[in-house]
Parts: sequence; C-alpha cells; structure tokens
Amino acid sequence: MAAARHSTLDFSLGATADGETILKGLQPIFRAQGMSESVHTWPAHGCLATYTNENGSFASLRIYPHGLVLLDIQSSDGDAQGSKELDSLLNKVEERMKELSQPRAPRVKRLPPIVRGGAVDRYWPTADGRLVEYDIDEVLYEEDSPYQNIKILHSKQFGNVLILSGDVNLAESDGAYTRAIMGGGNEDYAGKDVLILGGGDGGILCEVVKLKPKMVTMVEIDQMVIDACKKFMRKACGEVLDHLQGDCYRVLVADCIPVLKRYAQEGRMFDYVINDLTAVPISTSPEEDSTWEFLRLILDLSMKVLKHDGKYFTQGNCVNLTEALALYEEQLGRLYCPVGFSKEIVCVPSYLELWVFYTVWKTTKP
Amino acid sequence: MAAARHSTLDFSLGATADGETILKGLQPIFRAQGMSESVHTWPAHGCLATYTNENGSFASLRIYPHGLVLLDIQSSDGDAQGSKELDSLLNKVEERMKELSQPRAPRVKRLPPIVRGGAVDRYWPTADGRLVEYDIDEVLYEEDSPYQNIKILHSKQFGNVLILSGDVNLAESDGAYTRAIMGGGNEDYAGKDVLILGGGDGGILCEVVKLKPKMVTMVEIDQMVIDACKKFMRKACGEVLDHLQGDCYRVLVADCIPVLKRYAQEGRMFDYVINDLTAVPISTSPEEDSTWEFLRLILDLSMKVLKHDGKYFTQGNCVNLTEALALYEEQLGRLYCPVGFSKEIVCVPSYLELWVFYTVWKTTKP
Repeated sequence: MAAARHSTLDFSLGATADGETILKGLQPIFRAQGMSESVHTWPAHGCLATYTNENGSFASLRIYPHGLVLLDIQSSDGDAQGSKELDSLLNKVEERMKELSQPRAPRVKRLPPIVRGGAVDRYWPTADGRLVEYDIDEVLYEEDSPYQNIKILHSKQFGNVLILSGDVNLAESDGAYTRAIMGGGNEDYAGKDVLILGGGDGGILCEVVKLKPKMVTMVEIDQMVIDACKKFMRKACGEVLDHLQGDCYRVLVADCIPVLKRYAQEGRMFDYVINDLTAVPISTSPEEDSTWEFLRLILDLSMKVLKHDGKYFTQGNCVNLTEALALYEEQLGRLYCPVGFSKEIVCVPSYLELWVFYTVWKTTKP
Repeated sequence: MAAARHSTLDFSLGATADGETILKGLQPIFRAQGMSESVHTWPAHGCLATYTNENGSFASLRIYPHGLVLLDIQSSDGDAQGSKELDSLLNKVEERMKELSQPRAPRVKRLPPIVRGGAVDRYWPTADGRLVEYDIDEVLYEEDSPYQNIKILHSKQFGNVLILSGDVNLAESDGAYTRAIMGGGNEDYAGKDVLILGGGDGGILCEVVKLKPKMVTMVEIDQMVIDACKKFMRKACGEVLDHLQGDCYRVLVADCIPVLKRYAQEGRMFDYVINDLTAVPISTSPEEDSTWEFLRLILDLSMKVLKHDGKYFTQGNCVNLTEALALYEEQLGRLYCPVGFSKEIVCVPSYLELWVFYTVWKTTKP
C-alpha cells in the first residue's frame, strides 16, 4: 500500500508576520506546481492557505501573526521524481521566505519527512515519549499472541529488534542490556542457581549458561515470543531456545506468579533472580489492583526465593522518568523483608535513551 | 514566542476507504469542537477535509482511497487545558474510526506531537537523516562564530550538548566518544607527544593530560567554541580550557593546515595524532576542491608528522553511511605513504546512532 510522505518547513521570523505579503510572495511557487489555493483568515489569528494538486498531493501554509510560518506538504511516498520535485519546491519556498523576511534572517527548520502509513513502521517512541525514527527496513515477524503484540523488525545498525506491544525490548546490538541485567560483569555465576523471570528473547539465558551455572530456570509466559526469537533473534539467544531444556537450564512456559508461589512454598532458593519481565508485567492471574501492587507482589515473591546472600537484578526505566523510578524505589521499602538496592545508568544502543538497572539484596542476615 | 503543536493520527484500514462514510462519521466530532469544515475532492485521489477552529487551531483529514486516513491537527503549544482537549478529540476520532472500520481493525499510529517554532529546538536529525527528538529543555548558548553556528543545549539525560552547525558534536554523557577517539583505552600516553586537531570542546585534551603525556598540542580554529565549552561543557573539559597553556599542554587557536605544514617542514613528530575536526573540516585556506581532497590533505599532513610507530585516531561517520565510509577508506589507500587501518563501532550515547572510529598507522618502517 502506498504510504504518504509528510514534509515540513518552518520559519520563525523574529518579527510579526504580514500574512498578505507572504501569501502573495509564495503564490507563484505553488501556482507553478499547478496547485489551487484556498485561504481561510481569522480575525486575530492569522491565516491558513491550503493548496491542492491534481495529483492528490496538498500543502497547508499556516501564518501566525506573531511571526511563525509553518508549511506542510503531504504527497505520495516512494517516487524518486516526486521526491526531487518536492525538495525543489521546499528550496524555492525557503529562498523566497528569506527574501521576504529581509533584512532579518528567519530561523529555518526543515525536518526529515515523516513517512505515514508505510508497510514498515520506523517510528517507535522512547519510554519518555519522544519521537524517534529508527532505521528499520524490514518486518521479519508480526503476530498477536494471547498476551501481546509481537514484532521483530530489522534495523540496519542495531540488527533485529524485538518490539512487544510497541515497546522496544531488545536488539541484537544490545549486549549492554544483557550485561547490565546480569550484574554488569561483576558476578560469578559458576555453580549457582539462577531464576530468570520473563526473558523470552533468550538473551540472558544464552549468556548465563556460558558461565557454567548449576541450574538456570527461566519462566516465560509467551511461547510465541520464544518461537519468534528462536528464529529471528539468534544473535542474542544463540541456540539456547532450540530446546526448552539443556544441560544446565530449563525453560518453563508459564505465568511466573504461581511458579514463584510454589517455589516459595517448597522453600526453593536461588543465588540470582533476574527479573526481565516487560515494563508492565503480564500475568494470567493479576490479583492486585494497580501496576505498583503487582510489581510489589513479584518483588516480594522474588525475595522469598532469594538466598540471604543472593542478588536480584532488574531493569528499571528510562532515566528521565524520575517519578516512576521514585515510585519503584518506594515499593522496595515496602517489601515483607528489608532490602538494600543500588542502581546503574546504562546506554542500551537501540533504546535511544539511557536506562536505569537495579540490584536488590536482603539486608537481614539469617 | 508561542510555538505550535502538530499532532498526527494515522489509520491504515487494510481495505479501500469510503471517503463519504468516514467524513460523515467524523463530522459530529469536529462540529462539537465548533470547527468549520471545507472539503476538496479529487476525481481519483480521495478527498481532503479542512477544519478550522475560531481559536486559530485547524485540522486536515486526508482520505486516500486505497485505505489510508491521515489526520493532522495544529494548535497552540503550551496550554495544558488545550492539550487535554486535543487528546480527547484524538481519542474520539480513534474510537469512531474503529467503529467505522468494523469488522476489520485498522492499524492505528499516533506519534508524539511535534512542537514547531519553539524557543527550544528539540529536533536534531542523525547523520543518516533520521528524525529524532531530544529531551532538550534549555538553550545555554547560541552564537554564530566566523566559522560556524555554535549551540550548547541542555539535555535532561545527556547533560549539556555541543551542537556545531546543526550536528550533535559531544554531550557531557559521551565519555565513550572520547575514549574511542583516544584508542579505546588501549594506549599508553605517558611521556608521549600528542597532537589534537580540532577538539575545541576540550574533552580529549582533558583526558589525555590526566595520563601524564610529555606534551599535548591542540590546534583549534574557533576561539568561540573554546570559550563556550570552557563555560558550559565543564563535565567534559574540566579546567583544561581555563588557560591555553598548562604543564604539559598548549592550545593554538589556529587553522590546523598551516600548522601541520610548518610541523612537517620542521620535522616535528608525534606519537599520537588525534583528528577531532568536524565532519566537514573548516579551514581558512582550503586549497583543495572537494571535501574528500581536503580530508586527504589533512591525512597526508598528519602522516608526515606521525612517528613511524605512531598512531592516528579519528572519528569516521555513522555506521549506516556505508558509502561515505567506503570513500574515506579509499582515501586511506591514496596517501603519500602506505598505511594500515582498523575500525571500531561505538555507541556514543547522545548520537542516537552507532559511530565508526578509525585507527591509522604507517606500514613502512624506517
């Protein structure tokens, strides 16, 4: 399906805008394209000119009297000739606007065009809500599982990228994520009992099993994530997801809440618990009302299965979401047992924002 | 000056679009906002409805017959009440569009709104031309020097960011850049002669002087960059730019080309040459026609002042710009003396793209 390309060109004049002069000055440029003009004028808010082209493209020119002039052009994407003509049109408008603004030079901003409705979606906003475009060039996998929307897209620089319900989870470039959530390379996993909550992309499991642990148990709810990553995230997971069981690991395809409860009841203890669940964890049986209560339930259960000298690792959030981070830390003070924690800020390449990782430990010794 | 907020909401229907039904279905929502409608219909390209509001905001609804429906709303930025109303309007349109598309669910995309004409510009495209929004919240410095436009902006997560003529150069978070262009932590600078080309932010100089070199000479053309960074990039440069001379360093405010020529003539040699010039280097006396010839001139002169066992470090480009990287490597094969090179791909936090760094050395021994 043909996508649309949306181009913008903005002028901050640094002086009040004379709408009539600007409209008249730019008219010949749009007319030369065969575009028809229609103008709406507000008594006190400037004017809006809309230009339509026979080929289906259109432009809007909004002139704000305080000195802001915004041009938008929407046209068909993927046609090199059209793209060249569009650039030439934008160049002409920029040149003419600079003449019209004499002697003052306007501040000009031309953003890379936005592709809208494309088969390959390149826009995956950051956790702190910023607009970012990725260098995605291929959709490798896209399905809805019973739990979430699963996408694996190819980025030219980051390799394949797992996106769960719109959140960038892990790219093949993101060894820094796996390293951070395993304790930053400062831990000795040899001979240890390890529990991974979530982690369906297999990145952590793959790295932990290399370190000769006694046994790793991974509890991932979504078989479809495992199957997709097994196929398309091999640079992250290696061969570890090819079988749900190996020499020193096993993968349970299950909701981690009942599993944690059973382990707690049985008195099963781990040296490391690594929580790699999605930001808002999925459970088939959420017993608690709010996300925070649910997060606390997972933390509480995790502490119950953590040895007294064990460590709990988890990813926190974007470093800019200070309120969410503070609330998370507040939960740490409300667990059944007292805990200490430390945090580290890490640059995960594909995230395009800095990320906070936590280490949590029990402060009462047995 | 009041900025404008541009919101988008896109629907890919997965089926042909019935323009009339959609227009009619959405009309009540825009009317309830007191917006006036005007419709343009193409014989074969669908239609465009423009809605204007008395308060100066406006919307365009473009319906492409193959099944793409794009809504744009432009309104005044910075008014919390208006922002809430806008969100509510977008929610209503989304809900109604889902009803109108029954039984098929449309693919919906709502991007973070773009702020246009704001006093603080948050959009600094990557080297490979992608649209990215930074978490910039303050303009600390903005001046035009005789050579370039200099900005230092504050990013919440990256600290202060130096932007030269629109290119993100260095943020206070970018120790990874400085480390990479100094050889990735694998070099011994103690007692060495070091030449830095460019580097006006002081980041490299600050780190090299810590390593007890014999003498560091830095040649930076732009005094205004030095003065701005001395004040606003202290987390990168420390106190090193407070004086142009120190125990083991001196800063020449000069064009590096004549300096390199003089050093070559005098037979002055360095253990390390670190080229930290901007992507398209600035010289007051460019003798060569093209950028590539100019880059080769700098490389040739640098090799002339490099000891036979010395190393030349430089930043290359965004990893995605494979053509530019190949052209650069081609230049390395055309120098006056044979050289070898290696490259490393590094994640520089504030760049939002992976970056290539080069190490170059002479392959003929004396």
